[in-house]
Amino acid sequence: MTIKVSDIGEKELIRYIIANSKHITPDDTAITQFSDTNLISTCDMLIQSRHFPDNMSYFNMGFKSVTVNVSDLAAMGAKPIGFLLAIAMPKDLDVDSFKEIIQGVLEACYFYSIPLIGGDTNEASEIIISGTALGVCENPLMKDTYGKGDLIAVTGDIGLAALGFELETLDNIYTNKALKPIARVKEGQILKDFATSATDITDGLASELYEIKKDNFGFMIYEDLLGISDEYKQICENLGLDYLDKIFHVGEDFELLFTISKDNLDTLAIDYKVIGEVTDSDVVELTLENGFVERIENRGYEHYVSE
Amino acid sequence: MTIKVSDIGEKELIRYIIANSKHITPDDTAITQFSDTNLISTCDMLIQSRHFPDNMSYFNMGFKSVTVNVSDLAAMGAKPIGFLLAIAMPKDLDVDSFKEIIQGVLEACYFYSIPLIGGDTNEASEIIISGTALGVCENPLMKDTYGKGDLIAVTGDIGLAALGFELETLDNIYTNKALKPIARVKEGQILKDFATSATDITDGLASELYEIKKDNFGFMIYEDLLGISDEYKQICENLGLDYLDKIFHVGEDFELLFTISKDNLDTLAIDYKVIGEVTDSDVVELTLENGFVERIENRGYEHYVSE
Repeated sequence: MTIKVSDIGEKELIRYIIANSKHITPDDTAITQFSDTNLISTCDMLIQSRHFPDNMSYFNMGFKSVTVNVSDLAAMGAKPIGFLLAIAMPKDLDVDSFKEIIQGVLEACYFYSIPLIGGDTNEASEIIISGTALGVCENPLMKDTYGKGDLIAVTGDIGLAALGFELETLDNIYTNKALKPIARVKEGQILKDFATSATDITDGLASELYEIKKDNFGFMIYEDLLGISDEYKQICENLGLDYLDKIFHVGEDFELLFTISKDNLDTLAIDYKVIGEVTDSDVVELTLENGFVERIENRGYEHYVSE
Repeated sequence: MTIKVSDIGEKELIRYIIANSKHITPDDTAITQFSDTNLISTCDMLIQSRHFPDNMSYFNMGFKSVTVNVSDLAAMGAKPIGFLLAIAMPKDLDVDSFKEIIQGVLEACYFYSIPLIGGDTNEASEIIISGTALGVCENPLMKDTYGKGDLIAVTGDIGLAALGFELETLDNIYTNKALKPIARVKEGQILKDFATSATDITDGLASELYEIKKDNFGFMIYEDLLGISDEYKQICENLGLDYLDKIFHVGEDFELLFTISKDNLDTLAIDYKVIGEVTDSDVVELTLENGFVERIENRGYEHYVSE
């Protein structure tokens, strides 16, 4: 019996690609030197059955396809310069639905100030949107350039989308985040001159912490600082969910996770929340509300591998 | 009954996207100005059930995904600088098959001197590969900048792949072209300093001629100059196929179709074949071997619309 891609998981597949290519920078995007700046480029594909909840509108599918790509530009502190769209759809899709998807793309491009510069259409059995985001940055912000003693921070509340995916109702802060997440492009561009590192949270806070972890460095996150509302805990309890699991291990937040020296905090002109610090413990830990410390598991959303 | 995307066809869908975006250059790629050059960018998605014949190896799927994108760079005369790969596949795909696809991508990247700089993997019901090719060019070659009296030329034989798709056998010039077409990157870079216009042939010679046609301009192609071999005609006759239909209306050649002033011909250091000339007839025509002139239909490979 042969080994299938689902046996080894998405991260291993990506590792295979990286191991066989000398030119891939293992950061949020590619970086290509130009004479006076760097081209920042990234591409992400969204698959309807995987990435679009059943109650997501066609407009929001288009909007999200831009968001996921622009979020990687944000993580580098890049200024967006162009978006390319490749979209495949079933032949019996209503033309009006196609137009709604495109309107979602265009609205997002306008929102993020990233011109739509190219497009391609195809036929497939479900809606598949592959976007490429291009940006420029003289001094891109990498994801592992933090130092011991740096503070760890995020640009917004974590875990909202994760809870949103569990809810039937619409028009609440959780479902809104799940159906229409927002990339932190302006924040990223400000952060590049203040932060020591940054990445965007897509597969969950835990997953990203392990993604950026270097040998001999560790992270201590404080539950007290996460700002988890009583409402959040209550909804999770009602639904029989572990609220810390939702916050750490699902993702789709598209907030920026960044590190910053204490000295630079006062000058930072964006909304953010300090949630922990960089240590030399070599482990990734959480200090709970009750004072106990537990290891954060390296577990996030991953294609193929069932949790 | 609502209108479906298959009712209006791929070209109309693309027209909708272009009509709603101020920033799309209707040429083979996007062009973004940098201080001392232009970024040339393009993305194309290949769908297994649409673009990969049943007898195509996984390696060649990967190779082709690079070729189709690099071909657009070639059409602009761009120098490749980077390739981004987004690939989705069924969860029960053998890991070895995945690795063969990646090896095909890497081999093509090496062949075209375009570094693989980014990658992303996903799960879908069939293999879907979306590639983005990036290049640079100070003076990109557009597709409609020809003048009356210019000669029309192509970089190789047209129609080989079209016949290849009809054949069961392997290892012949037709099937080889169908399964492993090659983009004319070097030729494109040379052409940009000599040709007056260029595009690459993907949906068929007829389709591309109509794509580049401007008002008050026409094209006269000469069957005598196409270099159609007796073998080609014989195989088509044996299979009950119209050889001119195969040559004009299927595509997948990835040769460059370009225009050039008579004066520049001698200095052109690439393999090419003059096949016709630019006229002011406002129609697209073919002078047959027997001397008769017929209109070339605007018909090529198009998703959704059944032929």
